[in-house]
Amino acid sequence: MSGFVLRVRKSLSATLILVIAVFGLAGAHAQSDPLPSWNDGPAKLAIFAFVKDTTDKSSSKYIEPADRIATFDQDGTLWTEHPIYAQAAFALARVGEMAPQHPEWKQKEPFKSVLARDNAAMAKFSEADWLQIVAVTHAGMSTEAFQKIVKDWLATAKAPRFDRPYTDLIYQPMLEVMKYLRTNGFRTYIVTGGGQEFVRVYSEKVYGVPPEQVVGSSIATTYDNKSGKPVLMREPKVFFIDDGPGKAVGINLFIGKRPQAAFGNSGGDAQMLEWTQAGDGARLMMLVLHDDAKREYAYGPASGLPDTHVGTFSDALLLEATKNSWVVISMKNDWKRVFSFDP
Amino acid sequence: MSGFVLRVRKSLSATLILVIAVFGLAGAHAQSDPLPSWNDGPAKLAIFAFVKDTTDKSSSKYIEPADRIATFDQDGTLWTEHPIYAQAAFALARVGEMAPQHPEWKQKEPFKSVLARDNAAMAKFSEADWLQIVAVTHAGMSTEAFQKIVKDWLATAKAPRFDRPYTDLIYQPMLEVMKYLRTNGFRTYIVTGGGQEFVRVYSEKVYGVPPEQVVGSSIATTYDNKSGKPVLMREPKVFFIDDGPGKAVGINLFIGKRPQAAFGNSGGDAQMLEWTQAGDGARLMMLVLHDDAKREYAYGPASGLPDTHVGTFSDALLLEATKNSWVVISMKNDWKRVFSFDP
Repeated sequence: MSGFVLRVRKSLSATLILVIAVFGLAGAHAQSDPLPSWNDGPAKLAIFAFVKDTTDKSSSKYIEPADRIATFDQDGTLWTEHPIYAQAAFALARVGEMAPQHPEWKQKEPFKSVLARDNAAMAKFSEADWLQIVAVTHAGMSTEAFQKIVKDWLATAKAPRFDRPYTDLIYQPMLEVMKYLRTNGFRTYIVTGGGQEFVRVYSEKVYGVPPEQVVGSSIATTYDNKSGKPVLMREPKVFFIDDGPGKAVGINLFIGKRPQAAFGNSGGDAQMLEWTQAGDGARLMMLVLHDDAKREYAYGPASGLPDTHVGTFSDALLLEATKNSWVVISMKNDWKRVFSFDP
Repeated sequence: MSGFVLRVRKSLSATLILVIAVFGLAGAHAQSDPLPSWNDGPAKLAIFAFVKDTTDKSSSKYIEPADRIATFDQDGTLWTEHPIYAQAAFALARVGEMAPQHPEWKQKEPFKSVLARDNAAMAKFSEADWLQIVAVTHAGMSTEAFQKIVKDWLATAKAPRFDRPYTDLIYQPMLEVMKYLRTNGFRTYIVTGGGQEFVRVYSEKVYGVPPEQVVGSSIATTYDNKSGKPVLMREPKVFFIDDGPGKAVGINLFIGKRPQAAFGNSGGDAQMLEWTQAGDGARLMMLVLHDDAKREYAYGPASGLPDTHVGTFSDALLLEATKNSWVVISMKNDWKRVFSFDP
């Protein structure tokens, strides 16, 4: 890993080096540390330098509070995405709950493999297979009914390995960054490939991010007022995919302003970081590298970590990060704690 | 018009009558009047009663500031939409500017009629005709290039009849309502059938509404980073129509919260008002009726006004308004001034 750390350190900008020189690591601790779960190091300093640059009125990089925007990918950036995305676990659980009303599923793929808990078959599901599963589990009900189903599932479901609710598996250091940015006048948006309506169920409670600041993928909805009590019905039809280039599209569509800071962890976040960096003034682009098998999971394949095909951080992404001075966060080295329940 | 006014007065809710009884019209004037361009009457009182109900902590209808949302249609609700929508005027002007590069347009409809300024033919344009015009005038460039074209056009274009910039034709009483609601902790959103990117060019300057609070219709955009400087290219393909039932869909998609107040002026706003009213607690639904040919325009056809097919306020909409206690704003009777330049 030393080669990797060296590359990260080399990517420190001149600004950052100046901050270290002038303020030293101690400077950040003069008042109570807003990022107590972060080890002192380049990642933590990059965050401090960015906030100082953008909020100090005497800085040429000062940004008016109304324009301070930071965007965060969710899966793998704010919470655990392994062994499968929480929303995929939700969909599979729903198939199980709905199976008694669908006896034909026992003979019909992809449902047959889900009901047989055939992990090997599920690992090979195509996009078309997943779309079938999403269609039956995420559509055919009102938005309100869907939100209730998600809420009920979150209240009882347990994540593998940790045997805790999924919403316990939020990264404590990232919560601190979100809070620190908000304290400094930034609005924190979630920009996720996951379902917008799904994430909105818990985003305010878990992240302090209100529904209007959740940008995500969505299916089409249809207005229905036949009963005199209007509802929005969820249709089995993709409306918007907020992933990869779609994240830049989604940011423009939903926010209409360019973020100054963006946080991701995989190839699906590259365009969000590129779009963020293309603006003027101070910019902060960060990527979480999952290199901590002990406290969470280790996967890449960048830096020789295993490729597990969920939240892939490729060598190409690492090269782009290095070339563009994006800061790579090593979970293992940069985070004192991963979860709030860690010692 | 007396029959119409009677119907409006009959639609006053019990709360409103109570407010009149307890506070009287003078109550609203105890401090400086936040709605000086409004005549005293049921519309003005409905606004005061709503704000009092939702912001008084001792009220059972109190709403937390973070949840205070008000949505406003634009064309015909916040600014003049006659004789044609400003954005349609923009598109037609663009056809003229682009014509030298498109000699074939002289023989090709719908461009031929536009270039010949054949108003009779243009009045009969189908949706397909308008889509062709939008495709050539609104697509094929980056979002930034489009915004610049709109900005430049707004700086020089003059609205018919008034011979003033389009952005002068904002209704002063509605600006006062937006400001009054914001002063009381509401976030004011524009929810328009017009183009989201078009409106965002001037919404902050003109209405005090930032880009992230503009929900509108949009065409598809595509991320392009071939040059190393990423752009979003506007494609000649409809992505979302924020009109009629689409306004309820758009509110859920972009805001994810139900507004407590909604303002419109035509059939395209009915579902927004229905969706707003379907929530619990205090609700305010208002419709602007253009019954003032002297100061602006008069069209309906509700209340016997002429039907001009732009921003139609039908008898069916008036019936729905009456049935649901939506408050109809008479431009003629409720507004002291229409525009800031009125005496």
